[in-house]
Amino acid sequence: MNSELNNIPHKRYNILTGEWILVSPHRTKRPWQGKTEENKSHKKETYDPSCYLCPGNTRASGETNPDYKEPYSFINDFSSLLPDSPEINFQEGLLKAESERGICKVVCFSPDHSHTLPLMEVEDITRVVQTWKKEYLELGAEEDINYVQIFENKGAIMGCSNPHPHGQIWSQSSIPTEILKKSSKFREYWEQHKKSILSDYLEQELEAGERILDENEHFVSLIPYWAVWPFEAMIIPKRHLQHIGQLNEAEEEAYAEIIKKLTIKYDNLFETFFPYSSGIHQIPTDGKDYPEWHFHMSFYPPLLRSATVKKFMVGYEMFAGPQRDITAEQAAARLNDLSPIHYSLQ
Amino acid sequence: MNSELNNIPHKRYNILTGEWILVSPHRTKRPWQGKTEENKSHKKETYDPSCYLCPGNTRASGETNPDYKEPYSFINDFSSLLPDSPEINFQEGLLKAESERGICKVVCFSPDHSHTLPLMEVEDITRVVQTWKKEYLELGAEEDINYVQIFENKGAIMGCSNPHPHGQIWSQSSIPTEILKKSSKFREYWEQHKKSILSDYLEQELEAGERILDENEHFVSLIPYWAVWPFEAMIIPKRHLQHIGQLNEAEEEAYAEIIKKLTIKYDNLFETFFPYSSGIHQIPTDGKDYPEWHFHMSFYPPLLRSATVKKFMVGYEMFAGPQRDITAEQAAARLNDLSPIHYSLQ
Ligand SMILES: O=P(O)(O)O[C@H]1O[C@H](CO)[C@@H](O)[C@H](O)[C@H]1O
Ligand SMILES: O=P(O)(O)O[C@H]1O[C@H](CO)[C@@H](O)[C@H](O)[C@H]1O
Repeated sequence: MNSELNNIPHKRYNILTGEWILVSPHRTKRPWQGKTEENKSHKKETYDPSCYLCPGNTRASGETNPDYKEPYSFINDFSSLLPDSPEINFQEGLLKAESERGICKVVCFSPDHSHTLPLMEVEDITRVVQTWKKEYLELGAEEDINYVQIFENKGAIMGCSNPHPHGQIWSQSSIPTEILKKSSKFREYWEQHKKSILSDYLEQELEAGERILDENEHFVSLIPYWAVWPFEAMIIPKRHLQHIGQLNEAEEEAYAEIIKKLTIKYDNLFETFFPYSSGIHQIPTDGKDYPEWHFHMSFYPPLLRSATVKKFMVGYEMFAGPQRDITAEQAAARLNDLSPIHYSLQ
Repeated sequence: MNSELNNIPHKRYNILTGEWILVSPHRTKRPWQGKTEENKSHKKETYDPSCYLCPGNTRASGETNPDYKEPYSFINDFSSLLPDSPEINFQEGLLKAESERGICKVVCFSPDHSHTLPLMEVEDITRVVQTWKKEYLELGAEEDINYVQIFENKGAIMGCSNPHPHGQIWSQSSIPTEILKKSSKFREYWEQHKKSILSDYLEQELEAGERILDENEHFVSLIPYWAVWPFEAMIIPKRHLQHIGQLNEAEEEAYAEIIKKLTIKYDNLFETFFPYSSGIHQIPTDGKDYPEWHFHMSFYPPLLRSATVKKFMVGYEMFAGPQRDITAEQAAARLNDLSPIHYSLQ
């Protein structure tokens, strides 16, 4: 259906941000003489005495981790945001600054140092989902917290400094840029159609089929039409939910299952522990109603050609706008061709 | 003046994009156990027989470079955009794509393979400025070209695959996202004040002094109040010019001089060939009037703590918004403390 786009430079519209992405599918033949990354999939021990996230170990702050058996969350020892910053409202001519309060947490997904999401059991990932849910609701209930960003930086190439399976949660008083963009697009569509734009998008994608990665009773994973990163993917709940706090038990498990399957495909693509940053976008916790919002999770993986050659978002991308080489359909086909069994277990 | 902000997490407002940046100055004490970059400043030969940008050498396309003595520009052999793509206007429900035409060029700054901007003579950098000017005017005059993005990716860490001193120009039919954002902010201010927001900003910065890096008769370089990258800098012409095509001879030279001085400071910071992406933002070439626009050049360097530890723009930054650790004032003070003579010549 989009096959005429497979050889032609074009741009695609992101319905959630209102921004365009430049696609140059003819350019994949370009040779690569540039930087390659070191990206070995180290065999890891289940416990590392020098890891500050393993159970029972002492962290930089001097605190000792409990002997946890399930996902474990704690306040980040080097929090970017603090709950009790003094109030500042600075404006002097064209200079404008405001204080920002927040709470930053770390979530260990598993006590086992050697684990990663694709290698965990669905029931253990379900516990991670439940931890995210609990944190979202608890942090969101704090007076000064109006937005909760759950994310994972996976792999050294994504700035992750510790291979122990973990993610982060930064919660804060103001609503960040990316959420404001999406809010306005969700609202625009809602006002016209009284429906979630993502529900309609999902329906259209399921019919088209060519960008779908996986589907279960409650969730779909796909390469969005407007994907920026080479193998960017999105997980969308079929039910129109504003936030993960609304997930029922069956949905928690279905969510865990689709995460596992997606991340196995990722690892299988270049037979490596596939790096990415993932994040959940959901409604602000400022107490307002956001009937238009539909929560979703995105994965932004940097690798393009192999385990060691990534896509650089640099000059043109920083100054003009995002650019990609392979199309969303090509990325979906590549992932769909792979075995559903993790390469390390084959 | 902004010293109370030096220890307090806060956000700063970017007057050119309308977006906020999170600043966490208290977090610089964080230890770093993560990825370090290989970033050696290789001693280079003035001519490399295997370099596809050196004079007289043959490129991947089979073409041979002339024996150029001055900056040399040519059509990119792997252009992301092509001048003659067929017209496409695809819309099907929520999927939207359009064709995009363009011309991509490479600009070799010097025939000397071992050069970089900070090591070139001011008069040779002036020739680079004149080449940018000529390309901007010529490409901009093409019927289908409505925007011209001049940029440089410097260093392997910024996706640059060849150390020969060079930059790129991607020109295209539509106006990219970052330019649209700035256009609307320039216009907003112009309508209220009948002045360039950057002229007023420059005046305020020169008075404050604490973020100024350098000043000559025609240009100022500074760390913008809302800088995102640790040592992000901006070069602004004192005269309210919409684009580099309007530079007079004295301004061309002053521009070259301030580029040289800034990039020397950069190299001296960690005694390395300091990587960055730089770009010039100026008016679209769609023939419309943009009296509000004030051209400027920005440098986005990734290094944070040393020649090998960079700032990662990952999870939080991708899903919520930009975040930095040191303040703009701290970055300016660090650069201003350094010698104005390139470390390799000291
Ligand atoms: O054109 P180059 O130098 O091969 O490519 C580099 O710059 C381009 C423009 O910023 C990016 O799209 C590429 O990811 C990067 O590797
Ligand atoms: O908090 P960490 O894991 O030390 O830090 C990592 O994630 C943060 C949030 O995306 C980024 O600001 C840092 O640049 C990155 O290194």
